[in-house]
Amino acid sequence: MDNQILGLLAAILTTSAYLPQTYKVAKTKSAKDFSWMWLIFMWIGIFLWFIYGLRINNLPLILANGISIISLTIIGVVKYVYRQS
Amino acid sequence: MDNQILGLLAAILTTSAYLPQTYKVAKTKSAKDFSWMWLIFMWIGIFLWFIYGLRINNLPLILANGISIISLTIIGVVKYVYRQS
Repeated sequence: MDNQILGLLAAILTTSAYLPQTYKVAKTKSAKDFSWMWLIFMWIGIFLWFIYGLRINNLPLILANGISIISLTIIGVVKYVYRQS
Repeated sequence: MDNQILGLLAAILTTSAYLPQTYKVAKTKSAKDFSWMWLIFMWIGIFLWFIYGLRINNLPLILANGISIISLTIIGVVKYVYRQS
């Protein structure tokens, strides 16, 4: 299997694994399953992976982390906006 | 910042984000917060990232996913072994 396809397959799997949770968080307006510590560590980490992917011109890294950043941002925004409920 | 350092920093952040949960799962012998679907998608995805990292000889990818595979395997084993409780 060509490396690029392998990387893209990995990217699709680890990115799509978060989509059901992101959808559930957006629908239920509740992100209590996610701790702020985990969210912050992951957000910064995935952002660095994204920058790293851009720098070494690696498509799987750019796609996986570009989409994951959006998922995590949605979860973080919901967690902050609906923190009282 | 040198690319390798940037990649290793990203690897440390996204890998260590899972350590508290892995520790909690191992200590409480409960992995109910994790769905099987998420675990399987992530396990296969991270395993493919690990192989991809080996193939393109990328240290950050090898380290991050090599350690994450261990975390996920611990969570999966606990979830299976203590599934009745």
